[in-house]
Order: sequence, then structure tokens, then C-alpha cells
Amino acid sequence: MGTKKNSLIFGTRIGLLGGGQLARMLALKGQELGLEMHVLSPQASDPAAQVTRHWHQGSPDHAEDLASFFRQVDVVTVESEFHEATSLASAEKSSGTKLFPSAQNLGTLQDRLPQKDLLKASGLRTAPFFAVDTWADMDRAFEAFKGAFVLKKRRGGYDGYGTFIVRSKKDLERLKISFDPTQSPCIAEAFVPFVRELALVVARNPQGEIAVLPLVETHQVDSRLDWLKGPVRHPGLKTLQKGLEKFLKKIDYVGTIAFELFETKDRLLWINEVAPRVHNSGHYSLEAVEMDQFRLHLMAILGKSLTAELSVKAFAMTNLIGSGAATPEAPENLTGHLHWYGKNESRKGRKMGHVTYVGASSSALLKKALKERKGFKL
Amino acid sequence: MGTKKNSLIFGTRIGLLGGGQLARMLALKGQELGLEMHVLSPQASDPAAQVTRHWHQGSPDHAEDLASFFRQVDVVTVESEFHEATSLASAEKSSGTKLFPSAQNLGTLQDRLPQKDLLKASGLRTAPFFAVDTWADMDRAFEAFKGAFVLKKRRGGYDGYGTFIVRSKKDLERLKISFDPTQSPCIAEAFVPFVRELALVVARNPQGEIAVLPLVETHQVDSRLDWLKGPVRHPGLKTLQKGLEKFLKKIDYVGTIAFELFETKDRLLWINEVAPRVHNSGHYSLEAVEMDQFRLHLMAILGKSLTAELSVKAFAMTNLIGSGAATPEAPENLTGHLHWYGKNESRKGRKMGHVTYVGASSSALLKKALKERKGFKL
Repeated sequence: MGTKKNSLIFGTRIGLLGGGQLARMLALKGQELGLEMHVLSPQASDPAAQVTRHWHQGSPDHAEDLASFFRQVDVVTVESEFHEATSLASAEKSSGTKLFPSAQNLGTLQDRLPQKDLLKASGLRTAPFFAVDTWADMDRAFEAFKGAFVLKKRRGGYDGYGTFIVRSKKDLERLKISFDPTQSPCIAEAFVPFVRELALVVARNPQGEIAVLPLVETHQVDSRLDWLKGPVRHPGLKTLQKGLEKFLKKIDYVGTIAFELFETKDRLLWINEVAPRVHNSGHYSLEAVEMDQFRLHLMAILGKSLTAELSVKAFAMTNLIGSGAATPEAPENLTGHLHWYGKNESRKGRKMGHVTYVGASSSALLKKALKERKGFKL
Repeated sequence: MGTKKNSLIFGTRIGLLGGGQLARMLALKGQELGLEMHVLSPQASDPAAQVTRHWHQGSPDHAEDLASFFRQVDVVTVESEFHEATSLASAEKSSGTKLFPSAQNLGTLQDRLPQKDLLKASGLRTAPFFAVDTWADMDRAFEAFKGAFVLKKRRGGYDGYGTFIVRSKKDLERLKISFDPTQSPCIAEAFVPFVRELALVVARNPQGEIAVLPLVETHQVDSRLDWLKGPVRHPGLKTLQKGLEKFLKKIDYVGTIAFELFETKDRLLWINEVAPRVHNSGHYSLEAVEMDQFRLHLMAILGKSLTAELSVKAFAMTNLIGSGAATPEAPENLTGHLHWYGKNESRKGRKMGHVTYVGASSSALLKKALKERKGFKL
């Protein structure tokens, strides 16, 4: 018997750059599927380093570590979009080991300016924006957006980090003193007057096949996901999906990618943030969808088929956010599907884990989820 | 904030004796829940050894390895009931680390004779049997059971290993030549004329709380589980459950335990086999039940609450049995939930993995499962 065309070969070595919770969940899922999951991260105590026999000590931001890691695996992927794209490309070239999403995609999407240009060029609805490289640009933004705008660093921002809100002349003047746009290029965005936030996770394989996870409603606290529920039926979903497909095809994207959305009063969907990786808003899929976002990502980068059928009626998820407990604990009578990230220390605001509930009604599940969360010591 | 009464403390060190697929699935689930999963097994290539940073090389059947392993963890459990109970008890005593299920329970249940005595004493329906220690006992069994019986070794049998079927005088004479009951004490059992086989997985914690997974229909090939589907509604389930609760209370059992059942034409349920551990017939619960059998086992041995609510309407599961392929492969377009055990070699008859399907109709799911299984190279 020869190897079947495009079948999944067990023991294929997947290299994960980074050792956080996203890499951890990718590692656990990959092992379940019979893949050999390799992790490149600095510390043995990193969440993903703890759950595999194939931990490689090193940094994804160190060119030599990267090159050596690429040589020891069959395909490489990331849990963060913020690695230096040129280093990634050179490790890929010297090793002959493929990276997905591509270094080019990561390079483009990690920078809000070309990212937004691309979204716009694909006909996707996103807040008006322009580049801010000087203090004068900040003044121009203030005028153009009528006294209120969001300043976002072009690189490295997530969960509200690297984001500044201007609502008055006073805000603007303060920001101009504390922040130097010539050192950290930014974009300024108009506020989108949203009524709620939603999120959509999509996966695409090299053949162009696409799987779309259910649309979810998300609730943020301090710019961090606090809970979500779904599925959400939405009149704008079909059009959005078409635009996203076009966008992903244009950049030949491979892997899972997440879109954080604003819904406005007129029920229009606006793209707020793009994360070219598995994402917090897709964690619920582990229990709720035939192929969860981690499996979709792994199957996509291996060039396998994708499906994303919901296998339950409804779901809800809560994040477990640290508050600095010395010994975090779960309640004795917890019923939800618990995912704990194994971080070595609880810190205020740190994502420590999440809990998913599946069943018949998303609002009933969310109620239960919020109630059970109170029993955690975080 | 002090430690809450009986809450789950993350990072608790669980020791697993053995490195097979059951330990692997316990390790993966435990890590998901934030527990530190330690594995004692001989080879780094063992299925469970591959998926944790806390692999301890050694054998659960070696007293020194056992004692040292017990000292390095907070609680110990097994994936096989066939370890020497006295060694387990002495490792437990010298280390002060608890073992669940207890050494006493394992000692009793690993031996079919006291196991069957106990079932009978608890009023549970099981095939008539008696001890076979001599060739004369074999003759007596042949007469008592009217020319047809099953001879089972008292210790070490599973998946049909250590089981011999006698249906004629010729079978009996042949067996008497090839098999020496004075070396391997056995029991002889009357045949139960079953119409189908079922299985039930139950978990019990030290407080006596019990969770019962849905009843499933199982199909065996060569005495090995081939597929299952469920849930099965059954008029005899309630009575059986009551009997099992009594049985488990009597022996103060802690952990997950599986019962393989025969259903006769009159719809009576007979207990065929007992496995004091997580079991192949409960693997489907990973996708179908609020708390799967692995989590139930871990929660039970940690003294936490148990629930076993079905979270989908129906499910089916197929086993992936090896046929010696040099490079096993999964079909490109697989949709089911794949669990591959990472065994270093495919051998004929070896359990290599399983695939679970959840949805609305168990027979439709089984059909899909059997169809998708054909695409595997095993």
C-alpha cells in the first residue's frame, strides 16, 4: 500500500513558535490527533512547554533558535503574529520547512496600516483611518474625526495594549506629551458607534477551501474578552463572509484567522481587529463544533479538508482572568468544560483559563457560566 | 483568601501508572484541567509518555520504581487493574500518597473469582460460574453447563485474551491437553445467550456521589470493541444502576469503573466483565457528555463533584484497529473527532485510535463512522 494522496500522516512534526495558551491548546489538540507537537519557547514553565515531550528551549525572536527549530520539524506555525517577518522568511528559506500563515501574510497583517489598506481594498467595512507618524498627524486626526478618535500602534497591540482613546482637546494634548508617534508609528481610527461586539473565526487551506465557525457575541471588560455566547444569526453575515473569502483569497491566507467585529444600530458589521491565528473568541469551538479552531488550523496548514458544523444548539464561554491569587482554585462543583492554561503565576488581568458550556439556550448557558465563575479563586 | 473547602487546586500532581492510551487520554484531559500529569512507564515512546513533560522512566510492576514514583506526586491512579496489589499497597504506605481505586479494590477485581462472588453477593445478575483449579474441575464444568462453557483465566485477561470457549467434548479434550489449570487458576462460566452487548461506565467519589454515563450498545469483533452507539434507553437500566450503586458502596470504590453487559431475549441485563478503570466503551464521552469518563475519574480521585449529563442527542464511535501498516494514515476528508494513540508501531489487532461522532441519530452517525473508517490506512 502506498501513501494515499493527501492523507494525514500520523507523527507529522508540527513546530509551534511560542509557548503561551494558544500554543498549549494547539499542542493538546495536535497530540489528540496523533501529530508530534514541538514547542519553541524560553521557559520550561511556559503553558505549552508543559504539555509536550518536544519542548525546545529558545526564542522565536532569536534568528539562530528559529533556524534550528525550523530544521527539526515538518511544518511551522505561530501563536502570535508579532514575530519579525524577515527572520521567519529566512528561517523558512534556509530550512526548506514551510511556515503557515506565510511570513508575507504575517508581515502584512501584523502592521495595522497595510492590514487596513487590504481590508478596504477587499471591500470590507472598517473604520475610516489614516497613518499617524508625527504630532501634526495627531492634530489632523483630531480635526478629521471631529474631536474623537482611537490611536493604535501599528505593531504589537492586542487586548487594548497599544491603544489610546481621544475624546477631547485635553485628551489630545495629554497624549501628545506622553506619546511619541515618530518612535511608534500609529494609525488613527474614527470611532464606530457600535451596539455590540461580535467575532468570527475562519480557516482556509492552501487549496482555497474555507470553513467558517459560527458567529458569536462577545463582551469585553478592560478591552479583554470577558464572555461570549452563540451562535448569532445575522442578516449581514453572508455578505461579510463573501468579503472575507475574497480577502483571504487575495492574500492566499492559510490557517485559522479571527475577525473582531462591531455591530452598529443599523445592523451593519464592521471589522475592528484581525488576528491571523487561533483566537480567544474561537475557544468555545473545542466543545461546540465538529472541527474546533485548533484542529481547523492544523488541518489547514497540513492541506487537509475543513468543516465547521456546529454539533450543539448553543454555547457560552467565560474567560478566567487573574487577580493575583497565590494558589488559584476551581470550584468543587464546576460543571463547565474547564481549560486551565497552567501559567506559573496569577497576575491581575492575565488570561488564566476559560470555561465552555454547551446546551440548548445560549443565554441560559451564559447565566450558568457567570454563576459558576464566581466560585473560582483567581 | 484561604483555600476553599474541597476546591480544585491547579497544579495538583497526578501519578499515572502505565503509559498506554488510557493513561494518554487521562494525561491530556488532566493537562486541559490544569493538573500536572506524571506518567510512570518503561519507554519514552509509550503513548502517554509522549504527551507530558513529567514522564518517569520505570515500571509500575517494579517495587522500587513504584515507591519512588508515589513519593513524587499527590495522588496515584492506574490505567490497568493488573498490577500486584500488595506492591501498590506497600508503595502507598511507605509514601503516604493515596492510590485510587484502592489496592484492595484492585486486588479483588483483578481476580475473576472474588469479583464474581462480589457481584453475586450484591444481587447483580452474572453468568453462573465456579472455580477451575484442576482438570477434574473442567470436566465438572462441562457437565454442569451441559457441554458448553467459557473458561477464563482468573487474572490478566482482557479483550478475549485468556479466554477459551468449549462447545463440544472435542473442544474440552483439546483444551485439557493444551491448557494447565493447576498453573493458571480459572473460572468456568455458563454461556449467556445474549442478543446484543451493551456497556455502562460509572464513576464514584469518596463521598459516595455517583455519576452514570449513558448506556451504550457495543459491537465486538474478535472479542475487541469494534464500534458503539448510544444512548440506549432500557427498561432494566434503573434496577441495574441500583445494584451497581450497592456494589460500589459495599467495596467503597473510588474512580471510574466500566461494566460490559449482555442483553438477553427477555431484555435482562447480565454483567459480563468489570474493568475498574476508564474503558474503551467510555471514550465517546469526551465529545458527548458534560464530564467525560477521564474527567470523572480525575474528579473522583480528587474528591470533587461528579455530573454526567449528555450534551448531544446521540453519538457513535469506531475503534481503529491496527493491521500492520508501516505508516498509518487518516483520510484527508475525515470529519469525526479523531483520537490517535501514538503507538510506535501498528500491529494486527492493536488498538491504534478511535473516532467519535456526535449529532442527532446514532444509527446515521454509525453509518457515517463506518464509512469514514474505510479511508484509514492502519
